[in-house]
Amino acid sequence: MTTNPGRFAKPEVRAVSAYHLEPRDTPIKLNQNENAEGFPHALKEEIWQRVAGRDWARYPDFHLREITQRLAAHADVPEDWVLVGNGSNELLQMTLLTVVGRGDHIIVPLPTFTLYRLQSVVMGAMAHTPLMRAETNFAFPVDEVIDLAQRHDARAIVMCSPNNPTGTAYAEADIRRVIEATPGLVLLDEAYREFNRQDLCHLVRDYDNVVIFRTFSKALAMAGVRVGYCIARPEMAAEIGKVKLPYALNILSEAVTLVSLDHPELFAPTIDTAIQQRDRLLIELPRLPGLTVYPSAANFVLVHVAQGSDRAFQRLLSDGILVRDVSHYPGLSDHLRLSVGTAAENDALLESLSHFTRHPG
Amino acid sequence: MTTNPGRFAKPEVRAVSAYHLEPRDTPIKLNQNENAEGFPHALKEEIWQRVAGRDWARYPDFHLREITQRLAAHADVPEDWVLVGNGSNELLQMTLLTVVGRGDHIIVPLPTFTLYRLQSVVMGAMAHTPLMRAETNFAFPVDEVIDLAQRHDARAIVMCSPNNPTGTAYAEADIRRVIEATPGLVLLDEAYREFNRQDLCHLVRDYDNVVIFRTFSKALAMAGVRVGYCIARPEMAAEIGKVKLPYALNILSEAVTLVSLDHPELFAPTIDTAIQQRDRLLIELPRLPGLTVYPSAANFVLVHVAQGSDRAFQRLLSDGILVRDVSHYPGLSDHLRLSVGTAAENDALLESLSHFTRHPG
Repeated sequence: MTTNPGRFAKPEVRAVSAYHLEPRDTPIKLNQNENAEGFPHALKEEIWQRVAGRDWARYPDFHLREITQRLAAHADVPEDWVLVGNGSNELLQMTLLTVVGRGDHIIVPLPTFTLYRLQSVVMGAMAHTPLMRAETNFAFPVDEVIDLAQRHDARAIVMCSPNNPTGTAYAEADIRRVIEATPGLVLLDEAYREFNRQDLCHLVRDYDNVVIFRTFSKALAMAGVRVGYCIARPEMAAEIGKVKLPYALNILSEAVTLVSLDHPELFAPTIDTAIQQRDRLLIELPRLPGLTVYPSAANFVLVHVAQGSDRAFQRLLSDGILVRDVSHYPGLSDHLRLSVGTAAENDALLESLSHFTRHPG
Repeated sequence: MTTNPGRFAKPEVRAVSAYHLEPRDTPIKLNQNENAEGFPHALKEEIWQRVAGRDWARYPDFHLREITQRLAAHADVPEDWVLVGNGSNELLQMTLLTVVGRGDHIIVPLPTFTLYRLQSVVMGAMAHTPLMRAETNFAFPVDEVIDLAQRHDARAIVMCSPNNPTGTAYAEADIRRVIEATPGLVLLDEAYREFNRQDLCHLVRDYDNVVIFRTFSKALAMAGVRVGYCIARPEMAAEIGKVKLPYALNILSEAVTLVSLDHPELFAPTIDTAIQQRDRLLIELPRLPGLTVYPSAANFVLVHVAQGSDRAFQRLLSDGILVRDVSHYPGLSDHLRLSVGTAAENDALLESLSHFTRHPG
C-alpha cells in the first residue's frame, strides 16, 4: 500500500492549486509591476551604515516601535492603528486568518489579485466571487456585492483599488457604499495607490469596518526588501496583532524603510514617470490593430489581444520582453497584463507588439 | 451605541491573549536565547557586496532556488523536500494552517514555546495540552500523547526538542514511538538542535508523517536576519507551499544565509562556547541556595527559584541583566529561563544570583 504524504493537508488545501510564477530571465521584465526606474542607489550607503554596526544575532525590536511610529506619522494616524509586515501580503494573509475560518463567508469579486481568494479558501472560507466584466470596464459590482454580503452575512469583503490585474480605480462613493451596506470587514488593498494619486486612509477614520493595506513593493521600489503595512482601528489592529507573528521585518527592511521615508524626493519622479508612461501606453496600444486596452490607474495596463494572447506573449518573449499572461483569470481570456517599464522598455514593448499585430503568424 | 471595531475577529482570535514581550534595554540580554558571541563581523563586507549591486526594486526569485538548493545540500535531502521562510516561525504557522482548521484536533504538550498552541487555537483547532512535569524532568508524555492523538484522531502533534523553555531533549526512541503510533503529522521543531549536536533529519526519510523545522536565529546568530527552513516529504512540502506566501526572504536574508553556509568554521566555535557555558551554569547554579536546575540540551537553562522568581527577575534587572520570567507557563510557577551568555555575562549572572539567593529580601 502506498500512502500520500500530502494527506495531512486539510481538504481545503488539497483542493486548490498552488499560485505559481514561472521564473524566466529576460532583458526586459514587465511582469511584476515593479518600479522600472529601480531603487535609488544613492541611499544604499546610508542604509548600510545603519545595518553594518548592529549585531545581527539579536532579534529586532518586538514592537517594531521606530518604524511603526514613522509609518503612522507618514499616514497621519495614531501609532496603534498601524501594523508592519513582511510585504503587504503577509498582512493580508494575517487579516484573513484573523477574520475567517472554516464555514465563514467572504466576498472576493474577480478578476483580482490571486492571493485573496486562494488564502480565503485555504482558511476554509466560502468565497463568493461575483464577476467584474470587460463590458463595464471592470466596474466593481457594488449592488451584487452588497446583496451577497448581506445574504451570507459575509465576514469580509475584499476590494483592490486600483485593481490588479485590471487597473480599475473604484469611485470612492462606490467604496463607501460597500463599507456602509455590508455587515463585515472591508479589506481595501491600496497597493497601487501612488499611481492614482490616491489616499483612502480617511475611510478608516470614517468607518470602523475597514482595513487598508499598503506596500513598498510597487511605487516605492522595494519589492526585493519586503515591507508593507496596514491601517486599522486600534481594536482591530490588536486582534490582527494576536495572529501575526512578531519579527516580520529584518534589520535591512527596517533600515531601508526608515531611510526611504526620509527621501520622498527620490521616489516621486519615478512615480511621475510611471504615470506618464502608463498614459502613453494607454494612447499608443489601442492604435495597434487587434489590441483593446482598459482605463488603468496603476503602473500596468490590461490589454485584450484579438490575435491571441498566447501568441503575443511568446512573440514578446522571443523579443526579450516578459509580460504577464492573465488569460486564465476569470473573464480575461486573451488578455495580457503589461507592467509599465522605462521609456526605452516601453519603446521596445510597442515595437514588438506593433510587429506582432501586423504579422501575428 | 458604541460598537467594538475588534468584533470582526473570529471568536477563536478574540478569546486568546496576544503573545507579548516587554522590550527593555539592559547591558546584558539573556532573554531570547540568541547567540551571545554575535554574528561574525568578518562576513558582513562580503554579504554587502552581494546585496549592494542588485536592484532592490525587483522581487526575489519566486522559488528561492539558490538558497533552497544550498539548504537541501546542507541537510542532505532533495531540493523539493525544503521550504525556506522568514524565520522558522513562519513555516510553523504555515504548516499549522495547512494542517488544521476549525474543529480539528491537535496535541501540544506544555510547557513549550507559546506559538504552537496560540496559533493552533487561532486557526480554530482544539488543542489538547498534556502537562510535562518538573518531577520527571519534563519528559515527553509519550503514552498520554499517543492516547490523546488516537482518541481524537488528531491531525497534528507538536514536539520541540530540545524543548523551549525546559531545555529537555527527547530520546529519539520516544520521538519514533510518537511518530509511529499517531495518526497525524508530527511537527518536530529542532530550533536548538546545534546545542544538542543533533540531526533528526533521517526521521523524514524513515516516516512520511514528520516535518522538521530549523532556524538560523539561535546557534547561527541570525535572529535579526529572519531565516528558517523546514524539511518535509515533497508531497507535504507542496501542500505547505500552497499556503505559504512567496517572497518570504528579502535580498539581505538570502545573501546572509548563502555567505554563512560557506563559513561554518566561524559559527562552530560559538556553539562550542555556548555548550561549555551552559554546562558551567548547570553545575554552578544548583550550588546557590534555593535554585534548582533541570537538564538542558539547549543554550538556556530553566531554573526554579525557591525565593520567588519575580524577586529574582527584578534583582537581576536592577543589576542590568534581563532574563525570561516563565512563571506564567503551565507548571512553571517560580521558574526563570536564563539564556546562556558570554563567559563574562554568565559571571555577572552568577554573581547577581549569588547575592540574591543569600540576600533575597
